Amino acid sequence: MSNSGSGPDGGPDGGVARRGLMLVLSSPSGAGKTTISRALLTGDDNLTLSISVTTRAPRPGEQDGVDYRFIDRGRFDAMAKAGDLLEHAEVFRNGYGTPRAEVEAALAAGRDVLFDIDWQGTQQLGEKMRDDLVSVFILPPSTAELERRLHERAQDSAETVRARMAEASEEMSHWPEYDYIIVNLDIGESVRQARSILEAERLKRDRQVGLRNFVERLRRPQ
Amino acid sequence: MSNSGSGPDGGPDGGVARRGLMLVLSSPSGAGKTTISRALLTGDDNLTLSISVTTRAPRPGEQDGVDYRFIDRGRFDAMAKAGDLLEHAEVFRNGYGTPRAEVEAALAAGRDVLFDIDWQGTQQLGEKMRDDLVSVFILPPSTAELERRLHERAQDSAETVRARMAEASEEMSHWPEYDYIIVNLDIGESVRQARSILEAERLKRDRQVGLRNFVERLRRPQ
Repeated sequence: MSNSGSGPDGGPDGGVARRGLMLVLSSPSGAGKTTISRALLTGDDNLTLSISVTTRAPRPGEQDGVDYRFIDRGRFDAMAKAGDLLEHAEVFRNGYGTPRAEVEAALAAGRDVLFDIDWQGTQQLGEKMRDDLVSVFILPPSTAELERRLHERAQDSAETVRARMAEASEEMSHWPEYDYIIVNLDIGESVRQARSILEAERLKRDRQVGLRNFVERLRRPQ
Repeated sequence: MSNSGSGPDGGPDGGVARRGLMLVLSSPSGAGKTTISRALLTGDDNLTLSISVTTRAPRPGEQDGVDYRFIDRGRFDAMAKAGDLLEHAEVFRNGYGTPRAEVEAALAAGRDVLFDIDWQGTQQLGEKMRDDLVSVFILPPSTAELERRLHERAQDSAETVRARMAEASEEMSHWPEYDYIIVNLDIGESVRQARSILEAERLKRDRQVGLRNFVERLRRPQ
């Protein structure tokens, strides 16, 4: 069955038309979120990563429209005020946000959008788009393993790692706000689980907006 | 991650303790439900088929405790009256029902139970066990294909097939009562989709009853 939503009541191969969904992955840093996101995006033509707008300057190597859409403060504030951002936040006096129009267009066309955001962004998305939102929280398998990953990655001082562990603890306190929880014991298994969540959510009755017409045709005597 | 729920806060391999779920598959006959059920049960040690009780006599080859638990009318009526059946129905003056005790024990132990029942049974399960219920409706890809499958299977008269098509149409009118809808275009793909639904539902936050303790331990400084 097709995951795309074009055609009279369905996809090009006879599947049923579907509304897209918003898949949020959150986790403390070091729990495997980035690896899982990349794996999901690879080999799934129907899933695209949401590109945030930001007021901060591009860093070396960052591309406009790929890593972020870089906009000025005036435009950012105007978008926030007009309700054109599904979620937004200030980090070190820079604005970051998710533009509404692109997401709405994707969902209406039956395409799914992946978000790599924290619990605060997830809460804001949930207030505006609850029915379209599928939220997944990824937990590390143990405190020791999280600490090891943070060390390995950052080569940081013990103090920095301690500060990150405290941040991780804070982030993890929000697990009860998520629909699904993956404990990342094994990255391959966690990727498989995330794919199953995405696939299952695509099959939810209310997302398959072409079903009523499809079943009407099935039930009509030939 | 383990799907079983033994151990202090989790499964034997360090996973999180989980409450089992009730997976219902319904479809008009000829849509592929039996094939999908068998495929799900094969190679999934944590899923078992619910065995119904019935007052009808065993048919040649049927085994007590495997195909059904055969009980007398007095016992059946007593179970129904006492609320010991999660759902029950009369078909050609025989009683059929799902005993509550076995299902409750399985769910508490973190094991999942598969039900091959119609929309009436599904409605009754939903009234009693809504939080544990995951319901999937399987649709045929087209009227012509359903008719072909009914012909092939039954070698029946045109009249019998017409009667079955009418029954199928009636059954299909209940698709809006189900959580997930699979259009069975390809049996291999449909099996894969049913497996994804089962896997995803196992990862739902509220089913992972050991999570609170697990996260408490993660958040405690070492």
